[in-house]
Amino acid sequence: MALINEHFLKLPGNYLFADIAKKVNAYKVSHPKQKVISLGIGDVTQPLCPAVIEAMHKATDEMAKKASFRGYGPERGYDFLREAIIKNDFLPRGIHLDMNEIFVNDGAKSDTGNFQEILRWDNNIGVTDPVYPVYIDSNVMIGRAGVFENGAWSNVTYIPCTADNNFIPQIPDHRVDMIYLCYPNNPTGTVLTKEELRKWVNYAIHNDSIILYDAAYQAYIRDESIPHSIYEIRGARKVAVEFHSYSKTAGFTGIRCGYTIVPKELTASALDGTARASLNQIWDRRQCTKFNGTSYISQRAAEAIYTPEGRKQVKEVIDYYMENADIMRDSLTRLGYKVFGGINAPYLWVKTPDGIDSWKFFEQLLYGASVVCTPGVGFGPSGEGYIRFTAFGDREDCREAMKRIAEWTLK
Amino acid sequence: MALINEHFLKLPGNYLFADIAKKVNAYKVSHPKQKVISLGIGDVTQPLCPAVIEAMHKATDEMAKKASFRGYGPERGYDFLREAIIKNDFLPRGIHLDMNEIFVNDGAKSDTGNFQEILRWDNNIGVTDPVYPVYIDSNVMIGRAGVFENGAWSNVTYIPCTADNNFIPQIPDHRVDMIYLCYPNNPTGTVLTKEELRKWVNYAIHNDSIILYDAAYQAYIRDESIPHSIYEIRGARKVAVEFHSYSKTAGFTGIRCGYTIVPKELTASALDGTARASLNQIWDRRQCTKFNGTSYISQRAAEAIYTPEGRKQVKEVIDYYMENADIMRDSLTRLGYKVFGGINAPYLWVKTPDGIDSWKFFEQLLYGASVVCTPGVGFGPSGEGYIRFTAFGDREDCREAMKRIAEWTLK
Repeated sequence: MALINEHFLKLPGNYLFADIAKKVNAYKVSHPKQKVISLGIGDVTQPLCPAVIEAMHKATDEMAKKASFRGYGPERGYDFLREAIIKNDFLPRGIHLDMNEIFVNDGAKSDTGNFQEILRWDNNIGVTDPVYPVYIDSNVMIGRAGVFENGAWSNVTYIPCTADNNFIPQIPDHRVDMIYLCYPNNPTGTVLTKEELRKWVNYAIHNDSIILYDAAYQAYIRDESIPHSIYEIRGARKVAVEFHSYSKTAGFTGIRCGYTIVPKELTASALDGTARASLNQIWDRRQCTKFNGTSYISQRAAEAIYTPEGRKQVKEVIDYYMENADIMRDSLTRLGYKVFGGINAPYLWVKTPDGIDSWKFFEQLLYGASVVCTPGVGFGPSGEGYIRFTAFGDREDCREAMKRIAEWTLK
Repeated sequence: MALINEHFLKLPGNYLFADIAKKVNAYKVSHPKQKVISLGIGDVTQPLCPAVIEAMHKATDEMAKKASFRGYGPERGYDFLREAIIKNDFLPRGIHLDMNEIFVNDGAKSDTGNFQEILRWDNNIGVTDPVYPVYIDSNVMIGRAGVFENGAWSNVTYIPCTADNNFIPQIPDHRVDMIYLCYPNNPTGTVLTKEELRKWVNYAIHNDSIILYDAAYQAYIRDESIPHSIYEIRGARKVAVEFHSYSKTAGFTGIRCGYTIVPKELTASALDGTARASLNQIWDRRQCTKFNGTSYISQRAAEAIYTPEGRKQVKEVIDYYMENADIMRDSLTRLGYKVFGGINAPYLWVKTPDGIDSWKFFEQLLYGASVVCTPGVGFGPSGEGYIRFTAFGDREDCREAMKRIAEWTLK
């Protein structure tokens, strides 16, 4: 008799974004003439840049001819892309990576979800709170999170990030084996200075912990003192794996490409105390068994981002989104809202007025201004009393949403 | 202290194809002027067909304009592709599937590797032997395979498929919870009749087992009495998940697209005896957490296979490969080799002469004829004494290889 993995049954049935969609639909049915503006889901809206489009056409044409046709690619990704990553994303910051420390993937969600499986199921985990749900849910599935009680998982250390601590997570007073950090942060849009990040690296070295560092939004950093990579911190290569994505960097949410850095110095113990194992080798074994590389077209598309034209074009789109963020920040701040993030990240984290709870404010905004946000509590207990806005919309929608919120707020 | 998942450390260090590459390189170094022909690795060589290329260009152009740009797609895949799958791959065989029973993926390797994780780690498994290594290795990683002793895993039931039983796997005399079947078979190229497949479905129903059915090579079936899908067997929807791939169907090894069928009737028990869980729902939850859909370009490419032109063009390439198979079968049979498979599959499974072991014959063929095959023992204990040839090469290489083997054999 085949038995189900019972840990999957522990997961709450509903998804945050499905719940939102349901409520938005109910509103639309009762207000069929009203245009709803969504500043909710974190998906991009601007088309791919010309350099990327050109590279994709070229790669497609290569696949049409026998001489240039490509079948299975290397599981770690093509050399042309890994070389471009080293040269452009790391060398300029003084980080020297070997080709074999880079694993090209089909997007950061896969690897942030899958990487935990090469570690024992009974390590304990720590997350900043609020948090991107994939970190926790993927750990629930393997039985690592424990049981869900009173809105929290029993084996997860939640590290609150709220206005009270200026969104700086406090180092735990106990040992945490696996720590998820995401900076610039989704959902709060806040960042960590080098000094703060260094504390985490030192904590991990001291405790023999592993940091799973999600740098998916690093392209949005405008203050150049903020680290783009955890490997800017000395010693991080021994304790951290780092996830990158082209989804938000270059609008690749529909193209599917990203990469993960697993340094050769990164090791972990086996329970029986045998020699330490290389996570690079083990992750490679995992990928060679359960993954067959990313589309050649997508890898050529990613390579094009690093050309001079590609860099310029990608920056223009990022600047466009960040101008949205500026417009929203200014407008909401002028209206008296407390706004966080949105300076080095495409997310704005807004305190609900008068201590209203997240879902209630979500509904007020929907029915009062026909604007959709994401209730902060959907990202974890410390998200209660906040909502998230994304800067990925069209300029016109963004201005119109701010106008409506102003009218509604001042009414 | 973060601990490694110790099951990964149990995996043998070397890969079959890495070992082969090493030996081939050693030969090339000592014979620099000799052209080596590979009939070893199962990768396609012919370019993508025009209908697919056109669809990829069109999809790329859509991504260049704001009005037609697509960001995150549905995790289960776009409706246009799932509708084409239902209409073309299943309805003509009398199989009625619901849209939500289809999960588009980035290739069958991912899902054949990942699906096992939604089942308990202590289910036991059965595989036909020889076997595609991903089935076993992915189960080793979660701790399900036990320990490796004398060339076999302790918790795996190996079901021999050799010339002695005409490559028909015998139903086990004990209960196996999870059964992997791949037909047309990789590596032997043999097929199972409806009557034989029905025995497995009935066995699974009787034992409450789950069949993981890999149909990656179904497009190569020429004898229309052979089942293309396990769902042609009554009752299979209750006990089987089925994996499909465009890799071999349409040369998508570099494009990455396939799909998995998880019927709504497919359920499994929880250990505590609570109500049975729907594998469709649980797989959906897994995919929504650890996967973000397949490239839009790849999905449009797959859709194009189902157009009248696409169908015709794809069939031409399959016919080309199968003509290779015919040429190889005829030639090797005339030389006195015992050849299996190659009629409804792009693989030929050849008995080594005089009981020579697989690796020894591999080396004789390499040094005698400069032709690369795959040693059968690399696919499992029952592969000893066989080698595999693939039909995915160029016609010219295929003829030249047969000529060389003839000269060497008759010397």
